[in-house]
Amino acid sequence: MGKTLLDLSKERRSVRRYTDENVFLDDILYALKVASLAPSGANEQPWRFVIVEDDNTKKLVREACERGERHLYDNVKGEFKKWLLSQGLSHEKPFLEEAPYLVVVLMKRSAKYARESVWVAIGYILLALEEKGLSTLAYTPSNTDYPLHELDAPTGFKLEAILPVGHSDDESPRTSRRELSETVFMNKWGNLIPCARATGS
Amino acid sequence: MGKTLLDLSKERRSVRRYTDENVFLDDILYALKVASLAPSGANEQPWRFVIVEDDNTKKLVREACERGERHLYDNVKGEFKKWLLSQGLSHEKPFLEEAPYLVVVLMKRSAKYARESVWVAIGYILLALEEKGLSTLAYTPSNTDYPLHELDAPTGFKLEAILPVGHSDDESPRTSRRELSETVFMNKWGNLIPCARATGS
Repeated sequence: MGKTLLDLSKERRSVRRYTDENVFLDDILYALKVASLAPSGANEQPWRFVIVEDDNTKKLVREACERGERHLYDNVKGEFKKWLLSQGLSHEKPFLEEAPYLVVVLMKRSAKYARESVWVAIGYILLALEEKGLSTLAYTPSNTDYPLHELDAPTGFKLEAILPVGHSDDESPRTSRRELSETVFMNKWGNLIPCARATGS
Repeated sequence: MGKTLLDLSKERRSVRRYTDENVFLDDILYALKVASLAPSGANEQPWRFVIVEDDNTKKLVREACERGERHLYDNVKGEFKKWLLSQGLSHEKPFLEEAPYLVVVLMKRSAKYARESVWVAIGYILLALEEKGLSTLAYTPSNTDYPLHELDAPTGFKLEAILPVGHSDDESPRTSRRELSETVFMNKWGNLIPCARATGS
């Protein structure tokens, strides 16, 4: 592929607006194949994926998510509310209909370290889609039961995230990151790593 | 790098035995740089990393983890116990001293979607270490408070995982995975993806 993981992780961004350009289903299946090789607690592989391409199902999923979001936005307070407003976010989630595909990520509730395992797999997916030139967003609906009902999923599974997949039409600025010198310590909390390395360049 | 994410995810395995071959700290910092570019809830970047290279600290961390594991192994039952025994696992965690480095992953408790974000970052780390030819394991101690005390971490942070890092000396067989046809559906739960694609090859 020629690109390193540092390239991919630098280029990736969370995308909330998509073009109507075609996406190859095989590229999505590639990313899910990569994800399926992630480690998991007791190798239970607690992830399941529903790929949604049908317009009517996308519409139902969007409506279900927006019902939950409306409740959140009516009740959220403090720093999180400030952050939401600063990002221009609202209860409306048009990307759930505009993206050519949605990947709904479900988790087997009873599995050991289920959430940890599923989110490692989501990390794999984010990078694998980027490798294929596709954009996505790890969207976590405020109410995860509403959209789940539209997919006929059994009760032993919980919805963890919805990943819209498509080509980016999102021009909002890239979010910044802390320097490694703020997040990485040597041997004990607070012991700095050598300065030259801390720039992470 | 020449390798695709599918190559890396196929080659990666969870490693519990390490050689004493030298590891470059810069390769670990590379993986943490990659991880720091992961998305996170409200961009809070709730991850912190303590790289442990000091032998005495490794010993303290190992002892703290084994205290928790002993309690687990004395009390575990059912399918999980069977799985542990089938894997030849016990309360002993020699890799915590044998690996040249440990990366202790901490999570800011108060952050939105803290666990989800931290485990996406761990997914990034697993792949980035593999890219550098290094092996690791996403080890989750049974008691996460014990090892935390050895690192002087503040109370607002929780230990999520310890990643030993080194060169593999582990010859146990690779774990198998479900076919995509068992884990991926189209539009609704239970609708199969086309057969040829489901092999994921």
